[in-house]
Amino acid sequence: MRIVLDAIGGDHAPQAPVAGAVQAAREFGVEVVLVGPAEAIQRELAQHNTAGLKLPVVDAPELIEMDEHAVQAVRRKKQSSVAVGLRMVRAGEADAFVSAGHSGATMAGAVFILGRIAGIERPALVTVFPALKGTIIVADVGANTDSKPEYLVQWARMASLYAQLVLGVERPRIALLANGEEDSKGDKLVQDAHALLKSTELHFVGNAEPKDALVGDVADVIIADGFVGNLFLKGAEAVAKFAVKKVQRELGGSSVALRAAAGLVPTALLVATSKDKLRVLLASLLGGTAVLGAVLVPAVLRLAKTLDYRAYGGVPLLGVNGITIIAHGKSDAAAIASAIRRAQESVARGLVAAIAEREQVQA
Amino acid sequence: MRIVLDAIGGDHAPQAPVAGAVQAAREFGVEVVLVGPAEAIQRELAQHNTAGLKLPVVDAPELIEMDEHAVQAVRRKKQSSVAVGLRMVRAGEADAFVSAGHSGATMAGAVFILGRIAGIERPALVTVFPALKGTIIVADVGANTDSKPEYLVQWARMASLYAQLVLGVERPRIALLANGEEDSKGDKLVQDAHALLKSTELHFVGNAEPKDALVGDVADVIIADGFVGNLFLKGAEAVAKFAVKKVQRELGGSSVALRAAAGLVPTALLVATSKDKLRVLLASLLGGTAVLGAVLVPAVLRLAKTLDYRAYGGVPLLGVNGITIIAHGKSDAAAIASAIRRAQESVARGLVAAIAEREQVQA
Repeated sequence: MRIVLDAIGGDHAPQAPVAGAVQAAREFGVEVVLVGPAEAIQRELAQHNTAGLKLPVVDAPELIEMDEHAVQAVRRKKQSSVAVGLRMVRAGEADAFVSAGHSGATMAGAVFILGRIAGIERPALVTVFPALKGTIIVADVGANTDSKPEYLVQWARMASLYAQLVLGVERPRIALLANGEEDSKGDKLVQDAHALLKSTELHFVGNAEPKDALVGDVADVIIADGFVGNLFLKGAEAVAKFAVKKVQRELGGSSVALRAAAGLVPTALLVATSKDKLRVLLASLLGGTAVLGAVLVPAVLRLAKTLDYRAYGGVPLLGVNGITIIAHGKSDAAAIASAIRRAQESVARGLVAAIAEREQVQA
Repeated sequence: MRIVLDAIGGDHAPQAPVAGAVQAAREFGVEVVLVGPAEAIQRELAQHNTAGLKLPVVDAPELIEMDEHAVQAVRRKKQSSVAVGLRMVRAGEADAFVSAGHSGATMAGAVFILGRIAGIERPALVTVFPALKGTIIVADVGANTDSKPEYLVQWARMASLYAQLVLGVERPRIALLANGEEDSKGDKLVQDAHALLKSTELHFVGNAEPKDALVGDVADVIIADGFVGNLFLKGAEAVAKFAVKKVQRELGGSSVALRAAAGLVPTALLVATSKDKLRVLLASLLGGTAVLGAVLVPAVLRLAKTLDYRAYGGVPLLGVNGITIIAHGKSDAAAIASAIRRAQESVARGLVAAIAEREQVQA
């Protein structure tokens, strides 16, 4: 299997993409084609031990800047990493394209170069979300705003297949993200999509509130307009971070008095980064019982990470004729490696063919 | 000041409303008119010591069921607590109306009976949200879906006044809730409202992401369509609860091994409610250092409460000719008392007159 990676895309390019590609090639045994300015990539590759790994470089000298108009950029810059990489997928020279660069340009490029699967009017970003009980799929998380109800039905079909093929859920339960479980809740889009979904072959279970999406026992797949879905994910991530800060602050504030009374740690230890500070405060609270600190601190710190969708290695754009994975701009090497892993998994499960086949049955 | 309370509204009526009214009358020195089936209210009042408190009862025998159509119910049932209570406000016999009952009926009733303030096309639910740094105002949180950009501008004006009068913010910074700070983010509604808000006298600072809303250092007022705003609040509350559960689970899972090794608490103690369970587990983790448990446990448990908007005592429906407060259906006595407190505060600050005056200046 060959995955094309945009080696110049993302805030930490080319370092992070190249390091992520090396990691993925070593750990998952996959061939990763590095596309971008060849010289810069080669220089970066030289920093790594790549013996025995398949990491070819394909030159793509043109750069797409982050403030460029997505559609214009990808149409004009035919030698950009996005255009070159996606053309390789179209030509069958590679199986998937992964980028942490300009996400708008990657999405527009995927539609122009790979084309849409027949029956899919708007491709959607479909992500895996870690719920309290198991894992759920959320679509769309940012590719489309002001959607039509028909689009939501198309996404529900694709996301349902994704849940079957990638998560192994036999008959995925589909729900619409809404502000209440009653059929009357939601805006006009949700209400219209609700009526449409009821008449499909899908296992539609109605509306799901944010709490259902987080717990994960009501539905396996949550469908929303891309603006709403994106806001939901960003909100979840933000609240998780907020929660961690709150705990830090509560612990911080309370422990000042405690420390003063108990004299457990020297004040100097408090001057530290926030994570370190929490660690010190918890250590002080827990006194000498280091093993207990080792349990509690990760529990609190893991909170934010659990809801950080970057950690889940990029989001597939489903509905185009080829696997396309959008990774977060801030991706480090590990995030890039898991985006490559996601691409590999989607190719292995035959996701594109499965979507095309299912749409054909519907037509 | 006289506040009318719907004594039969809410999941725990008439117990919770009556107890909340008694508490408010005692603590805030306010007169609370209890409206609803007189006999049931009197029976409930007899359970309390009401000596010296002003708690008149006004009979309103008709009941609005939770599954009734809001508009029809309030139009047909002229002797319902909602209709009777709001007519008292219209007639100047009371200063505000508070209900934890059918929120749709209360909103529809407020529009029909009190009428809209000139210049306000759609009244909005405007809430106070506890951000990490201070407090922010969010509007609309559920009164309107499929809004027009003009409505958002009207809500921004009302919410700005609310921030000035109730929170004492001199020149409130207004932002639109969106999935990115860039002007191009958001759906069509957000983009159109963005353009309109730029041309107003308001201190508009652009788009705010969920994280900005939670931290509270970018804006004092966050404006969104009611579907999106409601989803945001419900999502925030859900994630906070989710976070607490995660911590509980992490602590629970890890401590089993720990306890087994250390034998700190008997297994029997683990059979308890989840809150109690956490308490026991933390106590076991912390060993004998009871004072430390007393600090840490509330810090974790307080998380969910911080983001539970019910605790903030109801949400004003702004834009109608009279203070109307929608309390949560699950309100207990304390929540009812704080909803009455909110009504009292809004009356004292002259909120309705201020909104009317400001709209007149704009006209």
